[in-house]
Amino acid sequence: MRYAMIVEYDGANYSGWQRQKKFSSVQEEIENALERLFNKQIIITGSGRTDKGVHAEGQVAHFDVETDLTPFKMKGSLNYFLPDDIQIIEIKKVSDDFHAQYDAISKVYEYRAFVSRIKRPLKRKYYIQIVPPIDINLIKECAKKIEGEHDFAAFSVFNNQEKQNTIRTVHRLDVLVDGEEVIFQIEGNGFLYKMVRSIVGTLIWIGKGKLPADTIEKMFETGLRELGGKTMLPNGLILKSVEYKEFRS
Amino acid sequence: MRYAMIVEYDGANYSGWQRQKKFSSVQEEIENALERLFNKQIIITGSGRTDKGVHAEGQVAHFDVETDLTPFKMKGSLNYFLPDDIQIIEIKKVSDDFHAQYDAISKVYEYRAFVSRIKRPLKRKYYIQIVPPIDINLIKECAKKIEGEHDFAAFSVFNNQEKQNTIRTVHRLDVLVDGEEVIFQIEGNGFLYKMVRSIVGTLIWIGKGKLPADTIEKMFETGLRELGGKTMLPNGLILKSVEYKEFRS
Repeated sequence: MRYAMIVEYDGANYSGWQRQKKFSSVQEEIENALERLFNKQIIITGSGRTDKGVHAEGQVAHFDVETDLTPFKMKGSLNYFLPDDIQIIEIKKVSDDFHAQYDAISKVYEYRAFVSRIKRPLKRKYYIQIVPPIDINLIKECAKKIEGEHDFAAFSVFNNQEKQNTIRTVHRLDVLVDGEEVIFQIEGNGFLYKMVRSIVGTLIWIGKGKLPADTIEKMFETGLRELGGKTMLPNGLILKSVEYKEFRS
Repeated sequence: MRYAMIVEYDGANYSGWQRQKKFSSVQEEIENALERLFNKQIIITGSGRTDKGVHAEGQVAHFDVETDLTPFKMKGSLNYFLPDDIQIIEIKKVSDDFHAQYDAISKVYEYRAFVSRIKRPLKRKYYIQIVPPIDINLIKECAKKIEGEHDFAAFSVFNNQEKQNTIRTVHRLDVLVDGEEVIFQIEGNGFLYKMVRSIVGTLIWIGKGKLPADTIEKMFETGLRELGGKTMLPNGLILKSVEYKEFRS
């Protein structure tokens, strides 16, 4: 039987979602918990990777197991075995051909920043700092240019992978301001490697006047990553949810 | 000349505000930074202690120094010497008889909780978990009983100190609910040792039906700490601000 799990994690102590030989990963921790519960190796398949230090509130993964345990009991046992910084929010039975990666319709990411000249001790773990001055209205304007179907080649870092299809659709990119906090919420049908952090970095550099206001258009036209701003630190990034036909995390 | 500083800190790595011989404290870190800047020992006086693990967004302290540095320059240098989990938000010149403890008119604390059966990895550092079921409306009702002038002896833990005056005025205790988050905001003219955490613990136990709804009245009448709920963990508590005639942090 196939099950899907919704996972929340604090990425600070992990090399990312994906299992690696030398470093601990979120996937490995969950697979270890499954092995303790079922006394055999069970591989899980995530909706996609998250990078070193990136968090998730609604990562989704699927796995197969034959068991009499209810999803509720399974969740309780796995959470008992898991560390405090990784917990399973929900487990559901899904159809046998459900696939956490291929069936994902869209994903929502959030990038959190605060505008201040001073480091904020209580925000340092889950936000990045933007030193003023910054033109938030200009950022909001330019954020709208990201929305729609575009070739996002210039907003990704290629990992020595072969040339891939870099066309993606961003359904919305909202810039929410609350006091000194600036939250970037982005929903799309898929994201390239480091794409969200490249977009946010470019918008912030435009807002700081380090890049011209037409940078987004130029990057779409040329596909040149070096026209953009830097890739922002991972600790401000959270995978909020993944949407499927069957459910939304 | 006398200066006041507004300090934000993450209390997780400190034994509390007050300098201690064996353990590192927020006060000690700031005094060490002042010593590095001015090449002499400078003692700071806080508005009051915060306990081990308790955070602050608006702790206030005063100190005396003769210097040509502007408050802005002082702040920048001190923040450079301070660790990331303690930063000075502001330094102001104050009158020579200003006293951070004795002149404090009121303080605002916030206690953060979330209601969930599952531990939340992204909230574990700055919130405590309340396992449902919980009657939030009953908590809101009982919170109103805390407001006003009362003898809070039953809501404190005495530190082998001599008998002190335990009458305090709580100006407001608001229980703010946002999704699964429950924030207790309390403002008063002064707080006894562990008073906020005892109040919140008692309210939560009432909300969970572990204590009768008239517990608050009984505790005021009798002064008995053992009638109340447990003292909640420090990581949910933040000293938000301290108010003076001259300014509010």
